[in-house]
Amino acid sequence: MATYRLVIEYNGRAFAGFQTQLNQVTVQSTLEAALAQHFDKERVIIHGSGRTDAGVHALGQVVSFRVDVERDPVHLRRGLNTALPPELSVILAERMPESFHARFTATGKTYRYRVYNRPDRSPFLTGFALHRFRPLDWSAIEAAMPALVGTHDFTTFRGAGCVAKSPVRTVDRAAHVDVGGGEHHLEFHGNGFLRYQVRRMVGTLLDVGERRRPPEDVAAALAACDPKRSGRTARPEGLYLVSVDYPPESLIFEGFSEAAPA
Amino acid sequence: MATYRLVIEYNGRAFAGFQTQLNQVTVQSTLEAALAQHFDKERVIIHGSGRTDAGVHALGQVVSFRVDVERDPVHLRRGLNTALPPELSVILAERMPESFHARFTATGKTYRYRVYNRPDRSPFLTGFALHRFRPLDWSAIEAAMPALVGTHDFTTFRGAGCVAKSPVRTVDRAAHVDVGGGEHHLEFHGNGFLRYQVRRMVGTLLDVGERRRPPEDVAAALAACDPKRSGRTARPEGLYLVSVDYPPESLIFEGFSEAAPA
Repeated sequence: MATYRLVIEYNGRAFAGFQTQLNQVTVQSTLEAALAQHFDKERVIIHGSGRTDAGVHALGQVVSFRVDVERDPVHLRRGLNTALPPELSVILAERMPESFHARFTATGKTYRYRVYNRPDRSPFLTGFALHRFRPLDWSAIEAAMPALVGTHDFTTFRGAGCVAKSPVRTVDRAAHVDVGGGEHHLEFHGNGFLRYQVRRMVGTLLDVGERRRPPEDVAAALAACDPKRSGRTARPEGLYLVSVDYPPESLIFEGFSEAAPA
Repeated sequence: MATYRLVIEYNGRAFAGFQTQLNQVTVQSTLEAALAQHFDKERVIIHGSGRTDAGVHALGQVVSFRVDVERDPVHLRRGLNTALPPELSVILAERMPESFHARFTATGKTYRYRVYNRPDRSPFLTGFALHRFRPLDWSAIEAAMPALVGTHDFTTFRGAGCVAKSPVRTVDRAAHVDVGGGEHHLEFHGNGFLRYQVRRMVGTLLDVGERRRPPEDVAAALAACDPKRSGRTARPEGLYLVSVDYPPESLIFEGFSEAAPA
Protein backbone atom coordinates (compact mmCIF):
# COMPACT_ATOMS: atom_id res chain seq x y z
CA MET A 1 0.00 0.00 0.00
CA ALA A 2 1.15 3.56 -0.68
CA THR A 3 -0.07 6.62 1.22
CA TYR A 4 -0.26 10.04 -0.42
CA ARG A 5 -1.32 13.49 0.61
CA LEU A 6 -2.68 16.19 -1.63
CA VAL A 7 -2.80 19.90 -0.85
CA ILE A 8 -5.81 21.27 -2.69
CA GLU A 9 -7.39 24.64 -3.44
CA TYR A 10 -11.06 25.01 -4.16
CA ASN A 11 -13.65 27.62 -4.93
CA GLY A 12 -16.44 26.82 -2.48
CA ARG A 13 -19.11 28.33 -4.73
CA ALA A 14 -18.86 25.29 -6.98
CA PHE A 15 -19.42 22.65 -4.29
CA ALA A 16 -22.06 21.58 -1.79
CA GLY A 17 -19.32 21.40 0.83
CA PHE A 18 -16.44 18.99 1.28
CA GLN A 19 -18.12 15.77 2.27
CA THR A 20 -19.86 13.37 -0.10
CA GLN A 21 -23.65 13.72 -0.05
CA LEU A 22 -26.21 11.95 -2.15
CA ASN A 23 -26.85 13.71 -5.48
CA GLN A 24 -24.62 16.67 -4.67
CA VAL A 25 -21.38 17.80 -6.23
CA THR A 26 -18.93 17.92 -3.36
CA VAL A 27 -15.17 18.31 -3.13
CA GLN A 28 -14.80 14.72 -1.93
CA SER A 29 -16.93 13.18 -4.66
CA THR A 30 -15.21 15.25 -7.37
CA LEU A 31 -11.74 14.36 -6.17
CA GLU A 32 -12.55 10.68 -5.63
CA ALA A 33 -13.95 10.47 -9.16
CA ALA A 34 -10.71 11.94 -10.57
CA LEU A 35 -8.65 9.54 -8.42
CA ALA A 36 -10.65 6.51 -9.55
CA GLN A 37 -9.98 7.53 -13.15
CA HIS A 38 -6.27 7.97 -12.41
CA PHE A 39 -6.00 4.65 -10.56
CA ASP A 40 -7.67 2.57 -13.25
CA LYS A 41 -11.15 2.56 -11.73
CA GLU A 42 -9.94 1.49 -8.31
CA ARG A 43 -12.23 3.02 -5.66
CA VAL A 44 -10.09 5.50 -3.67
CA ILE A 45 -11.44 6.92 -0.43
CA ILE A 46 -9.95 10.19 0.69
CA HIS A 47 -9.74 11.63 4.19
CA GLY A 48 -9.81 15.39 4.54
CA SER A 49 -8.20 17.32 7.41
CA GLY A 50 -11.78 18.26 8.22
CA ARG A 51 -15.00 19.16 6.47
CA THR A 52 -15.74 22.56 5.06
CA ASP A 53 -19.33 23.68 4.59
CA ALA A 54 -21.02 24.62 1.31
CA GLY A 55 -19.62 27.91 0.00
CA VAL A 56 -16.46 27.79 2.15
CA HIS A 57 -13.23 28.08 0.15
CA ALA A 58 -9.85 26.42 0.64
CA LEU A 59 -6.36 27.61 -0.22
CA GLY A 60 -4.62 24.70 1.47
CA GLN A 61 -6.98 21.87 2.40
CA VAL A 62 -5.15 18.57 2.89
CA VAL A 63 -6.44 15.10 2.03
CA SER A 64 -4.80 11.70 2.34
CA PHE A 65 -5.53 8.32 0.81
CA ARG A 66 -4.05 4.86 0.39
CA VAL A 67 -3.79 2.92 -2.82
CA ASP A 68 -2.41 -0.45 -3.89
CA VAL A 69 -0.26 0.95 -6.66
CA GLU A 70 2.43 3.58 -6.52
CA ARG A 71 2.40 6.71 -8.66
CA ASP A 72 5.00 9.37 -9.26
CA PRO A 73 3.61 12.33 -7.24
CA VAL A 74 4.28 14.90 -9.98
CA HIS A 75 2.45 12.78 -12.54
CA LEU A 76 -0.32 12.24 -10.03
CA ARG A 77 -0.76 15.99 -9.50
CA ARG A 78 -0.74 16.75 -13.21
CA GLY A 79 -3.02 13.88 -14.09
CA LEU A 80 -5.56 14.87 -11.46
CA ASN A 81 -5.51 18.52 -12.55
CA THR A 82 -6.25 17.47 -16.11
CA ALA A 83 -9.32 15.56 -14.91
CA LEU A 84 -10.54 18.06 -12.31
CA PRO A 85 -12.81 21.07 -12.97
CA PRO A 86 -11.14 24.52 -12.77
CA GLU A 87 -12.77 25.16 -9.38
CA LEU A 88 -10.62 22.47 -7.73
CA SER A 89 -6.87 22.28 -8.12
CA VAL A 90 -4.18 20.04 -6.65
CA ILE A 91 -1.20 22.22 -5.74
CA LEU A 92 0.96 19.52 -4.18
CA ALA A 93 1.04 15.72 -4.20
CA GLU A 94 3.46 13.82 -1.97
CA ARG A 95 4.14 10.25 -0.94
CA MET A 96 3.68 9.95 2.82
CA PRO A 97 4.73 7.55 5.54
CA GLU A 98 2.07 4.89 6.05
CA SER A 99 1.10 6.41 9.40
CA PHE A 100 0.05 9.74 7.88
CA HIS A 101 -3.65 10.63 8.05
CA ALA A 102 -4.88 14.07 6.96
CA ARG A 103 -7.21 14.38 9.94
CA PHE A 104 -5.58 12.43 12.75
CA THR A 105 -2.04 13.69 12.12
CA ALA A 106 -3.09 17.37 11.88
CA THR A 107 -1.95 19.58 14.76
CA GLY A 108 -3.36 22.96 13.75
CA LYS A 109 -5.32 24.97 11.23
CA THR A 110 -5.40 28.52 9.93
CA TYR A 111 -8.67 30.09 8.81
CA ARG A 112 -9.19 33.49 7.20
CA TYR A 113 -12.43 35.41 6.99
CA ARG A 114 -12.57 38.12 4.30
CA VAL A 115 -14.82 41.15 4.70
CA TYR A 116 -14.99 44.16 2.42
CA ASN A 117 -16.38 47.54 3.23
CA ARG A 118 -17.55 49.73 0.43
CA PRO A 119 -20.84 51.35 -0.55
CA ASP A 120 -21.63 48.79 -3.27
CA ARG A 121 -21.07 45.10 -3.86
CA SER A 122 -18.09 44.20 -6.01
CA PRO A 123 -18.68 41.97 -9.05
CA PHE A 124 -15.30 40.40 -8.34
CA LEU A 125 -15.71 39.78 -4.60
CA THR A 126 -19.31 38.54 -4.54
CA GLY A 127 -19.11 34.96 -3.27
CA PHE A 128 -15.49 35.45 -2.19
CA ALA A 129 -15.81 37.91 0.68
CA LEU A 130 -18.56 39.23 2.94
CA HIS A 131 -19.87 42.64 1.89
CA ARG A 132 -20.69 45.29 4.48
CA PHE A 133 -21.71 48.59 2.95
CA ARG A 134 -21.38 50.51 6.21
CA PRO A 135 -17.85 50.98 7.60
CA LEU A 136 -17.18 48.72 10.56
CA ASP A 137 -15.44 49.81 13.75
CA TRP A 138 -12.28 47.75 13.34
CA SER A 139 -10.68 49.16 16.52
CA ALA A 140 -13.57 47.80 18.54
CA ILE A 141 -13.19 44.42 16.79
CA GLU A 142 -9.46 44.43 17.57
CA ALA A 143 -10.23 45.22 21.21
CA ALA A 144 -12.54 42.19 21.38
CA MET A 145 -10.32 39.64 19.63
CA PRO A 146 -7.83 38.80 22.42
CA ALA A 147 -10.72 37.34 24.45
CA LEU A 148 -10.94 34.53 21.89
CA VAL A 149 -7.28 33.54 22.30
CA GLY A 150 -6.43 30.75 24.72
CA THR A 151 -7.77 27.35 25.72
CA HIS A 152 -11.49 27.70 26.28
CA ASP A 153 -14.75 25.83 26.29
CA PHE A 154 -16.12 27.23 22.99
CA THR A 155 -19.70 26.00 23.53
CA THR A 156 -21.01 29.52 22.84
CA PHE A 157 -19.61 29.37 19.30
CA ARG A 158 -20.36 25.71 18.65
CA GLY A 159 -22.82 25.13 15.83
CA ALA A 160 -25.88 22.92 15.98
CA GLY A 161 -25.07 19.38 14.89
CA CYS A 162 -21.43 19.55 15.97
CA VAL A 163 -20.33 16.01 16.80
CA ALA A 164 -17.03 16.82 18.55
CA LYS A 165 -16.65 15.06 21.88
CA SER A 166 -15.20 18.06 23.68
CA PRO A 167 -16.03 21.73 23.19
CA VAL A 168 -12.56 22.72 24.45
CA ARG A 169 -10.19 24.11 21.84
CA THR A 170 -7.06 26.27 21.84
CA VAL A 171 -6.94 29.36 19.65
CA ASP A 172 -3.42 30.79 19.74
CA ARG A 173 -3.81 33.59 17.22
CA ALA A 174 -6.69 35.89 16.34
CA ALA A 175 -5.65 38.82 14.19
CA HIS A 176 -7.18 41.59 12.13
CA VAL A 177 -5.38 42.58 8.93
CA ASP A 178 -6.37 45.71 7.00
CA VAL A 179 -5.51 44.60 3.49
CA GLY A 180 -6.31 47.96 1.89
CA GLY A 181 -8.98 48.91 -0.64
CA GLY A 182 -11.66 48.40 2.00
CA GLU A 183 -10.77 44.72 2.45
CA HIS A 184 -10.19 43.27 5.90
CA HIS A 185 -9.18 39.80 7.05
CA LEU A 186 -9.87 38.13 10.37
CA GLU A 187 -7.35 35.31 10.83
CA PHE A 188 -7.50 32.50 13.36
CA HIS A 189 -5.00 29.80 14.16
CA GLY A 190 -5.73 27.00 16.56
CA ASN A 191 -5.31 23.31 17.26
CA GLY A 192 -8.73 22.68 15.77
CA PHE A 193 -12.14 24.29 15.48
CA LEU A 194 -15.68 23.19 16.29
CA ARG A 195 -18.36 23.19 13.64
CA TYR A 196 -19.23 26.81 12.68
CA GLN A 197 -16.85 28.07 15.39
CA VAL A 198 -14.97 30.50 13.13
CA ARG A 199 -18.13 31.78 11.45
CA ARG A 200 -19.87 32.28 14.81
CA MET A 201 -16.85 34.05 16.32
CA VAL A 202 -16.78 36.28 13.22
CA GLY A 203 -20.53 36.91 13.43
CA THR A 204 -20.07 38.01 17.03
CA LEU A 205 -17.11 40.25 16.14
CA LEU A 206 -19.19 41.81 13.35
CA ASP A 207 -21.82 42.71 16.00
CA VAL A 208 -19.01 44.53 17.80
CA GLY A 209 -17.89 46.23 14.57
CA GLU A 210 -21.46 47.37 13.96
CA ARG A 211 -21.61 48.65 17.57
CA ARG A 212 -24.47 46.32 18.39
CA ARG A 213 -22.52 44.98 21.37
CA PRO A 214 -19.49 46.33 23.25
CA PRO A 215 -16.09 44.65 22.83
CA GLU A 216 -16.18 43.31 26.42
CA ASP A 217 -19.29 41.33 25.60
CA VAL A 218 -17.27 38.84 23.53
CA ALA A 219 -15.39 37.62 26.61
CA ALA A 220 -18.64 37.49 28.58
CA ALA A 221 -20.39 35.55 25.81
CA LEU A 222 -17.55 33.02 25.63
CA ALA A 223 -17.48 32.57 29.42
CA ALA A 224 -21.25 31.97 29.49
CA CYS A 225 -20.89 28.74 27.45
CA ASP A 226 -24.29 29.50 25.98
CA PRO A 227 -24.91 29.32 22.20
CA LYS A 228 -27.63 31.95 22.57
CA ARG A 229 -24.93 34.49 23.44
CA SER A 230 -23.22 34.08 20.04
CA GLY A 231 -23.78 36.44 17.15
CA ARG A 232 -25.17 35.04 13.94
CA THR A 233 -23.14 32.51 11.98
CA ALA A 234 -21.32 34.65 9.39
CA ARG A 235 -22.03 33.65 5.78
CA PRO A 236 -19.79 30.90 4.35
CA GLU A 237 -18.59 32.92 1.35
CA GLY A 238 -16.00 34.90 3.34
CA LEU A 239 -14.33 31.84 4.91
CA TYR A 240 -11.09 30.27 3.67
CA LEU A 241 -9.28 27.25 5.08
CA VAL A 242 -5.77 28.62 4.57
CA SER A 243 -3.53 25.79 5.76
CA VAL A 244 -3.28 22.70 7.92
CA ASP A 245 -0.27 22.01 10.16
CA TYR A 246 1.46 18.66 10.56
CA PRO A 247 4.53 17.76 12.59
CA PRO A 248 7.47 18.01 10.16
CA GLU A 249 8.54 14.42 10.85
CA SER A 250 5.07 13.14 9.95
CA LEU A 251 5.56 14.33 6.37
CA ILE A 252 8.85 12.60 5.61
CA PHE A 253 8.59 9.47 3.51
CA GLU A 254 11.84 7.57 3.71
CA GLY A 255 11.03 4.82 1.30
CA PHE A 256 10.47 1.21 2.03
CA SER A 257 12.13 -0.21 5.11
CA GLU A 258 13.12 -3.76 4.28
CA ALA A 259 11.88 -6.33 6.74
CA ALA A 260 14.64 -7.13 9.21
CA PRO A 261 16.38 -10.40 8.33
CA ALA A 262 14.91 -13.26 10.28
CA MET B 1 -33.32 66.68 -20.29
CA ALA B 2 -30.73 65.60 -17.75
CA THR B 3 -27.44 63.88 -18.62
CA TYR B 4 -25.79 61.38 -16.27
CA ARG B 5 -22.69 59.27 -16.30
CA LEU B 6 -22.19 56.01 -14.47
CA VAL B 7 -18.86 54.40 -13.65
CA ILE B 8 -19.47 50.65 -13.62
CA GLU B 9 -17.60 47.48 -12.76
CA TYR B 10 -18.46 44.15 -14.30
CA ASN B 11 -17.39 40.55 -14.31
CA GLY B 12 -17.09 39.73 -17.99
CA ARG B 13 -17.78 36.04 -17.42
CA ALA B 14 -21.44 36.86 -16.89
CA PHE B 15 -22.01 38.77 -20.13
CA ALA B 16 -21.86 38.22 -23.87
CA GLY B 17 -19.91 41.48 -24.15
CA PHE B 18 -20.96 45.08 -23.66
CA GLN B 19 -23.20 45.76 -26.60
CA THR B 20 -26.82 44.66 -26.92
CA GLN B 21 -27.26 41.57 -29.09
CA LEU B 22 -30.41 39.64 -29.82
CA ASN B 23 -31.15 36.95 -27.21
CA GLN B 24 -27.92 37.54 -25.29
CA VAL B 25 -27.33 38.89 -21.83
CA THR B 26 -25.03 41.87 -22.32
CA VAL B 27 -23.85 44.68 -20.07
CA GLN B 28 -25.86 47.19 -22.08
CA SER B 29 -29.11 45.24 -22.05
CA THR B 30 -28.79 44.49 -18.32
CA LEU B 31 -28.08 48.10 -17.43
CA GLU B 32 -30.79 49.49 -19.70
CA ALA B 33 -33.33 47.11 -18.15
CA ALA B 34 -32.40 48.36 -14.66
CA LEU B 35 -32.57 51.99 -15.84
CA ALA B 36 -35.98 51.48 -17.44
CA GLN B 37 -37.22 50.09 -14.13
CA HIS B 38 -35.72 53.05 -12.24
CA PHE B 39 -37.14 55.62 -14.66
CA ASP B 40 -40.70 54.31 -14.59
CA LYS B 41 -40.49 52.19 -17.74
CA GLU B 42 -39.04 55.00 -19.82
CA ARG B 43 -36.71 53.52 -22.46
CA VAL B 44 -33.19 54.72 -21.61
CA ILE B 45 -30.40 54.25 -24.15
CA ILE B 46 -26.88 54.23 -22.77
CA HIS B 47 -23.65 55.05 -24.55
CA GLY B 48 -20.52 53.28 -23.36
CA SER B 49 -17.01 54.70 -23.66
CA GLY B 50 -16.48 51.76 -26.00
CA ARG B 51 -17.45 48.14 -26.38
CA THR B 52 -15.79 45.34 -24.51
CA ASP B 53 -15.90 41.80 -25.89
CA ALA B 54 -17.44 38.74 -24.25
CA GLY B 55 -15.39 37.71 -21.21
CA VAL B 56 -13.58 41.05 -20.86
CA HIS B 57 -13.91 42.64 -17.42
CA ALA B 58 -14.26 46.28 -16.39
CA LEU B 59 -13.17 48.07 -13.24
CA GLY B 60 -14.11 51.52 -14.50
CA GLN B 61 -16.19 51.43 -17.67
CA VAL B 62 -18.13 54.69 -18.20
CA VAL B 63 -21.58 55.05 -19.70
CA SER B 64 -23.73 58.15 -20.26
CA PHE B 65 -27.43 58.63 -20.94
CA ARG B 66 -30.07 61.32 -21.09
CA VAL B 67 -33.46 61.21 -19.45
CA ASP B 68 -36.45 63.52 -19.17
CA VAL B 69 -36.61 63.43 -15.40
CA GLU B 70 -33.94 64.26 -12.85
CA ARG B 71 -32.80 61.86 -10.17
CA ASP B 72 -30.59 62.34 -7.18
CA PRO B 73 -27.33 60.60 -8.27
CA VAL B 74 -26.86 58.80 -4.94
CA HIS B 75 -30.39 57.41 -5.08
CA LEU B 76 -29.83 56.50 -8.70
CA ARG B 77 -26.68 54.52 -7.87
CA ARG B 78 -28.30 52.71 -4.96
CA GLY B 79 -31.51 52.01 -6.85
CA LEU B 80 -29.65 50.56 -9.80
CA ASN B 81 -27.45 48.39 -7.61
CA THR B 82 -30.54 46.93 -5.96
CA ALA B 83 -31.91 45.97 -9.39
CA LEU B 84 -28.64 44.79 -10.96
CA PRO B 85 -27.13 41.28 -10.69
CA PRO B 86 -24.00 40.96 -8.51
CA GLU B 87 -21.80 40.72 -11.62
CA LEU B 88 -22.49 44.35 -12.52
CA SER B 89 -22.14 47.21 -10.08
CA VAL B 90 -22.47 50.98 -10.35
CA ILE B 91 -19.67 52.57 -8.36
CA LEU B 92 -20.40 56.20 -9.21
CA ALA B 93 -23.36 58.12 -10.63
CA GLU B 94 -23.05 61.81 -11.47
CA ARG B 95 -25.10 64.52 -13.17
CA MET B 96 -23.17 65.76 -16.19
CA PRO B 97 -23.21 68.84 -18.41
CA GLU B 98 -25.51 68.30 -21.38
CA SER B 99 -22.50 68.08 -23.73
CA PHE B 100 -21.02 65.02 -22.00
CA HIS B 101 -20.96 61.78 -23.98
CA ALA B 102 -19.14 58.71 -22.62
CA ARG B 103 -17.58 57.91 -25.99
CA PHE B 104 -17.09 61.24 -27.74
CA THR B 105 -15.81 63.12 -24.68
CA ALA B 106 -13.30 60.38 -23.72
CA THR B 107 -9.64 61.32 -24.19
CA GLY B 108 -7.88 58.16 -23.02
CA LYS B 109 -8.21 54.67 -21.64
CA THR B 110 -6.23 52.34 -19.42
CA TYR B 111 -6.32 48.58 -19.99
CA ARG B 112 -4.72 45.87 -17.85
CA TYR B 113 -3.98 42.31 -18.91
CA ARG B 114 -3.50 39.82 -16.07
CA VAL B 115 -1.33 36.72 -16.51
CA TYR B 116 -0.38 34.22 -13.85
CA ASN B 117 2.47 31.80 -13.96
CA ARG B 118 2.27 28.71 -11.82
CA PRO B 119 2.31 24.97 -12.44
CA ASP B 120 -1.46 24.55 -11.98
CA ARG B 121 -4.56 26.61 -12.68
CA SER B 122 -5.97 28.52 -9.74
CA PRO B 123 -9.64 27.96 -8.84
CA PHE B 124 -9.79 31.65 -7.93
CA LEU B 125 -8.11 33.09 -11.05
CA THR B 126 -9.74 30.92 -13.71
CA GLY B 127 -11.72 33.34 -15.88
CA PHE B 128 -10.01 36.33 -14.29
CA ALA B 129 -6.44 35.99 -15.54
CA LEU B 130 -4.60 34.07 -18.24
CA HIS B 131 -2.83 30.97 -16.97
CA ARG B 132 0.63 30.05 -18.26
CA PHE B 133 2.09 27.02 -16.52
CA ARG B 134 5.60 27.62 -17.86
CA PRO B 135 7.47 30.67 -16.54
CA LEU B 136 7.60 33.46 -19.11
CA ASP B 137 10.69 35.53 -19.87
CA TRP B 138 9.47 38.84 -18.49
CA SER B 139 12.76 40.63 -19.20
CA ALA B 140 12.33 39.86 -22.90
CA ILE B 141 8.74 41.13 -22.74
CA GLU B 142 9.95 44.33 -21.04
CA ALA B 143 12.57 44.77 -23.76
CA ALA B 144 9.87 44.54 -26.43
CA MET B 145 7.26 46.83 -24.85
CA PRO B 146 8.76 50.28 -25.65
CA ALA B 147 8.26 49.56 -29.38
CA LEU B 148 4.51 49.76 -28.78
CA VAL B 149 4.69 53.25 -27.27
CA GLY B 150 4.14 56.24 -29.54
CA THR B 151 1.81 57.28 -32.35
CA HIS B 152 1.69 54.44 -34.84
CA ASP B 153 -0.40 52.82 -37.51
CA PHE B 154 -1.54 49.77 -35.48
CA THR B 155 -2.87 47.81 -38.49
CA THR B 156 -0.79 44.79 -37.42
CA PHE B 157 -2.75 44.56 -34.17
CA ARG B 158 -6.14 45.55 -35.57
CA GLY B 159 -8.73 42.82 -35.29
CA ALA B 160 -10.97 41.56 -38.09
CA GLY B 161 -14.20 43.53 -38.23
CA CYS B 162 -12.72 46.70 -36.71
CA VAL B 163 -14.77 49.64 -37.99
CA ALA B 164 -12.45 52.48 -36.92
CA LYS B 165 -11.79 54.96 -39.73
CA SER B 166 -8.09 55.31 -38.98
CA PRO B 167 -5.68 52.65 -37.69
CA VAL B 168 -3.48 55.35 -36.11
CA ARG B 169 -3.49 55.47 -32.33
CA THR B 170 -1.21 56.84 -29.63
CA VAL B 171 -0.08 54.54 -26.83
CA ASP B 172 1.75 56.60 -24.23
CA ARG B 173 2.37 53.93 -21.62
CA ALA B 174 3.09 50.21 -21.83
CA ALA B 175 4.29 48.73 -18.57
CA HIS B 176 4.93 45.37 -16.98
CA VAL B 177 4.14 45.02 -13.27
CA ASP B 178 5.23 41.95 -11.30
CA VAL B 179 2.44 41.80 -8.75
CA GLY B 180 3.94 38.89 -6.81
CA GLY B 181 2.66 35.37 -6.27
CA GLY B 182 3.32 34.56 -9.92
CA GLU B 183 0.89 37.23 -11.12
CA HIS B 184 1.94 39.76 -13.76
CA HIS B 185 0.12 42.70 -15.30
CA LEU B 186 0.66 44.29 -18.69
CA GLU B 187 -0.78 47.82 -18.59
CA PHE B 188 -1.49 50.09 -21.54
CA HIS B 189 -2.63 53.68 -21.64
CA GLY B 190 -3.52 55.43 -24.86
CA ASN B 191 -5.90 57.85 -26.50
CA GLY B 192 -7.94 54.93 -27.78
CA PHE B 193 -7.52 51.37 -28.98
CA LEU B 194 -8.59 49.48 -32.09
CA ARG B 195 -10.69 46.35 -31.85
CA TYR B 196 -8.61 43.52 -30.29
CA GLN B 197 -5.55 45.80 -30.28
CA VAL B 198 -4.63 45.18 -26.63
CA ARG B 199 -5.26 41.44 -26.86
CA ARG B 200 -3.19 41.16 -30.06
CA MET B 201 -0.34 43.21 -28.62
CA VAL B 202 -0.45 40.96 -25.54
CA GLY B 203 -0.54 37.81 -27.69
CA THR B 204 2.55 39.04 -29.52
CA LEU B 205 4.33 39.88 -26.25
CA LEU B 206 3.48 36.39 -24.94
CA ASP B 207 5.25 34.95 -28.01
CA VAL B 208 8.30 36.93 -26.90
CA GLY B 209 7.90 35.70 -23.30
CA GLU B 210 7.75 32.14 -24.57
CA ARG B 211 10.86 32.81 -26.70
CA ARG B 212 8.97 32.06 -29.89
CA ARG B 213 10.09 35.40 -31.34
CA PRO B 214 12.85 37.83 -30.29
CA PRO B 215 11.94 41.14 -28.60
CA GLU B 216 13.02 43.14 -31.69
CA ASP B 217 10.39 41.38 -33.77
CA VAL B 218 7.60 43.37 -32.05
CA ALA B 219 8.86 46.65 -33.57
CA ALA B 220 9.29 44.95 -36.94
CA ALA B 221 5.79 43.45 -36.82
CA LEU B 222 4.27 46.85 -35.95
CA ALA B 223 6.20 48.60 -38.75
CA ALA B 224 5.04 45.99 -41.28
CA CYS B 225 1.37 47.08 -40.89
CA ASP B 226 0.43 43.48 -41.60
CA PRO B 227 -2.07 41.61 -39.41
CA LYS B 228 -0.33 38.33 -40.28
CA ARG B 229 2.68 39.53 -38.29
CA SER B 230 0.66 39.71 -35.05
CA GLY B 231 0.67 36.99 -32.43
CA ARG B 232 -2.59 35.33 -31.54
CA THR B 233 -5.35 37.38 -29.94
CA ALA B 234 -4.88 36.73 -26.20
CA ARG B 235 -7.93 35.26 -24.48
CA PRO B 236 -10.48 37.79 -23.21
CA GLU B 237 -10.48 36.54 -19.60
CA GLY B 238 -7.25 38.37 -18.68
CA LEU B 239 -8.36 41.78 -19.96
CA TYR B 240 -9.70 44.60 -17.77
CA LEU B 241 -10.85 48.05 -18.84
CA VAL B 242 -9.42 49.90 -15.84
CA SER B 243 -10.47 53.51 -16.42
CA VAL B 244 -11.54 56.06 -18.99
CA ASP B 245 -10.18 59.62 -19.02
CA TYR B 246 -12.20 62.77 -19.56
CA PRO B 247 -11.10 66.39 -19.49
CA PRO B 248 -11.78 67.61 -15.94
CA GLU B 249 -13.96 70.47 -17.17
CA SER B 250 -16.17 68.05 -19.11
CA LEU B 251 -17.27 66.45 -15.85
CA ILE B 252 -18.41 69.57 -14.01
CA PHE B 253 -22.15 70.08 -13.91
CA GLU B 254 -22.85 73.63 -12.83
CA GLY B 255 -26.59 73.40 -12.63
CA PHE B 256 -29.13 75.12 -14.78
CA SER B 257 -28.10 78.35 -16.42
CA GLU B 258 -31.14 80.60 -16.40
CA ALA B 259 -32.00 82.05 -19.76
CA ALA B 260 -30.56 85.54 -19.98
CA PRO B 261 -33.26 88.19 -19.47
CA ALA B 262 -34.64 89.37 -22.76
